[in-house]
Amino acid sequence: MARVLTPRAEDFPRWYQDLIAKAQLADNGPVRGTMVIRPAGYSIWERMQAEMDNRIKIAGAENAYFPLFIPESYLKREAEHVEGFSPELAVVTHGGGKQLAEPVVVRPTSETVIGEFMAKWVDSYRDLPLLLNQWANVVRWELRPRIFLRTSEFLWQEGHTAHATEDDARSYARKILHEVYEDFMVGVLGIPVVVGRKTNRERFAGATSTYTLEGMMGDGKALQMGTSHELGQNFAKAFDISYSAASGGVEHAWTTSWGTSTRMLGGLIMSHGDDNGLRVPPRLAPIQAYVMVVKDGDGVTAAAHKLRDALRDAGVRVGLDDRVDTAFGRRAVDAELKGYPVRIEVGPRDLAAGNAVVARRFDGSKTPVPVADVVGRVLAVLEEDQQRLHDEALAFRESHTVEVSTLADAIAATATGWARVPWSAVGVEGEAQANGQGVTVRCL
Amino acid sequence: MARVLTPRAEDFPRWYQDLIAKAQLADNGPVRGTMVIRPAGYSIWERMQAEMDNRIKIAGAENAYFPLFIPESYLKREAEHVEGFSPELAVVTHGGGKQLAEPVVVRPTSETVIGEFMAKWVDSYRDLPLLLNQWANVVRWELRPRIFLRTSEFLWQEGHTAHATEDDARSYARKILHEVYEDFMVGVLGIPVVVGRKTNRERFAGATSTYTLEGMMGDGKALQMGTSHELGQNFAKAFDISYSAASGGVEHAWTTSWGTSTRMLGGLIMSHGDDNGLRVPPRLAPIQAYVMVVKDGDGVTAAAHKLRDALRDAGVRVGLDDRVDTAFGRRAVDAELKGYPVRIEVGPRDLAAGNAVVARRFDGSKTPVPVADVVGRVLAVLEEDQQRLHDEALAFRESHTVEVSTLADAIAATATGWARVPWSAVGVEGEAQANGQGVTVRCL
Ligand SMILES: [Zn+2]
Ligand SMILES: [Zn+2]
Repeated sequence: MARVLTPRAEDFPRWYQDLIAKAQLADNGPVRGTMVIRPAGYSIWERMQAEMDNRIKIAGAENAYFPLFIPESYLKREAEHVEGFSPELAVVTHGGGKQLAEPVVVRPTSETVIGEFMAKWVDSYRDLPLLLNQWANVVRWELRPRIFLRTSEFLWQEGHTAHATEDDARSYARKILHEVYEDFMVGVLGIPVVVGRKTNRERFAGATSTYTLEGMMGDGKALQMGTSHELGQNFAKAFDISYSAASGGVEHAWTTSWGTSTRMLGGLIMSHGDDNGLRVPPRLAPIQAYVMVVKDGDGVTAAAHKLRDALRDAGVRVGLDDRVDTAFGRRAVDAELKGYPVRIEVGPRDLAAGNAVVARRFDGSKTPVPVADVVGRVLAVLEEDQQRLHDEALAFRESHTVEVSTLADAIAATATGWARVPWSAVGVEGEAQANGQGVTVRCL
Repeated sequence: MARVLTPRAEDFPRWYQDLIAKAQLADNGPVRGTMVIRPAGYSIWERMQAEMDNRIKIAGAENAYFPLFIPESYLKREAEHVEGFSPELAVVTHGGGKQLAEPVVVRPTSETVIGEFMAKWVDSYRDLPLLLNQWANVVRWELRPRIFLRTSEFLWQEGHTAHATEDDARSYARKILHEVYEDFMVGVLGIPVVVGRKTNRERFAGATSTYTLEGMMGDGKALQMGTSHELGQNFAKAFDISYSAASGGVEHAWTTSWGTSTRMLGGLIMSHGDDNGLRVPPRLAPIQAYVMVVKDGDGVTAAAHKLRDALRDAGVRVGLDDRVDTAFGRRAVDAELKGYPVRIEVGPRDLAAGNAVVARRFDGSKTPVPVADVVGRVLAVLEEDQQRLHDEALAFRESHTVEVSTLADAIAATATGWARVPWSAVGVEGEAQANGQGVTVRCL
């Protein structure tokens, strides 16, 4: 097959860009740093949203929607907060044909406005816990944009919760970490994330603990796939989220926040992509099985439609490609680029022998299968290849992680992967030293 | 029952505001004209999205996401367009801590940016039709905001499609109108919308035909619930969306656009709400059946949980209220405000007789039902009351619409409702005269 993408080994960042363009996942938007998410990319994001949203609701949080525009004064309420964000803000100065009396900021996060409303809504201990989540776009001006990974506008979910006790807040931040994020990333994305706590140096401004999920990408580097924060009473004090306790007396609430974003699309590409394109894990895939008419012939199109219907009836998310006026080779390259887990190729020659060809995206293998057995085979392949993608990523991570005992060895190891090193051999000073060499302590 | 809301007959706009506040559907945001959609309101919007999105996908359109920020120059491309929007624009002049070289506009619609990308993506007739939809927030600065009806930021879906022929574009604009919008509004919202075409005076700038769906609200006024536009080749020429035809030669495409928004939440409230609060049609309702523990007692909470589980197993979307430390009367008022179609009240006295009380939000009726029959009864009530809400709204519309033959009679009739009048008795001049008296021709 002709070379479609720059090989990963040659230039990993270039391969990433090529893949996004050729699989038609996204384009750069007209304003620098923004992106257009095309149907092939957006349909994957919708499946991420559906799987995550279901888990978030089971964890008890309710969705709401807070405004895009935030008064500038809100961001100044929480000093640590504004320092972190001000160089990244987009500011609206004109509205309705006039200069605004007070400029408004396009939300870089809804933390402050949600804090403000939580203070209004929380009155007594009976109103707690208050568990909110929002799916929205946010803006953080980005000087070195990279599609999905760092864009001036991105899509995300942000959870914000208020609790009566520190214990309750802590266990909720961890519940989201494990039962929503880790469960989704390992079980659906097939990415064996390492889950742990950030060092004081790396944690979110204003948080008392930041939990992180770190995935290893195909270049051996780490990508932060999501975070969950305990905010102690810091935010509740800044926004006066207080409640009358069952025992009488007024107390400040304990809050958490947690988020994941379209960055997960970048993580998906860099974890599972290969030199032929994307490989989407079956449980995530918007199209799990892709029935392709190789070329016209006796009963071929009818057989393809029947297979499509049978797969759909078996609960498989299925697509059909019968565009026989486009060369099959070109369509097959496109299907590989898009990463559909299984292709069912229906052509006159195989069909005459009673077969269709089942092609697995995971390893590129192709097997003729009797038409009557295709549905069963596809169901089995989807199960198996979900697991194999995960296991391959885990084996890759393990082979690119070394156990070392000194900071110097750890820094050396990060040239090709990760190092696991005792925190006692690093410490606050060692961390500063490693940062100076472009190495970060990702996870305790 | 104590008066909870301003009665509709006393002050309809006040009743509307009261209902939104007391049912906790939404709040005003901190920036004038913006809104916070609270969980009780947002969960209804999510159900609207799910039902609409499913129909949009069946109609063949694919979801994508285009950027929030649009270069100012894009809006100037299409002269009619910018005139319509410029007094409503929010303009970002600062980003990343600096003044921007070219100000960017917060999208009032994505029409221009989607036009730009369609031009890039469409090459040959094989790329057509191109059927795109987007769920997003948009901003149109609003001087007289009203929650859900007119807000500076609102949520919507906007569809944009390009076709090879005028016929194909026309039939797609009508397909969306009938198979997506009308089917959803009549069948799920239970609002008997009148579907038709706008006059030249009322149609969208740049459109060759604007189709509309108009609902009659509880005050006899019309609300535009959605629109679908044929844009001819106007947009395709402005954005150079052209394709090489099968016959050879380069042609401009024919485009459509269509949209519905969070305004539908306003339409829902004003169509079905009564003096006790919202009434959500069963097919739409996020919570269709609400099991309430009246007060503690022998086996009461256990029985309520069993009913909740049995309803859920029967496919009913069900909520449970066992907050017995809050007075039942207060909780019942709240459930009426929120408009859950059916309440199942479980209390010690009825339970001792083997019953639970089934209360229908539609008409306020309450009937003791043997516990074993509750699930069956609830399923029947959900079916019936979906239909009854629709039929009641239809009867209301018919009793508030008069057939007249002169323009003067038509204008007089709009004091209390609608008038159906032959267009030959109105005409372009009559329409202008009616507009002068605050009366619009809604639908041909
Ligand atoms: Zn875990
Ligand atoms: Zn119709």
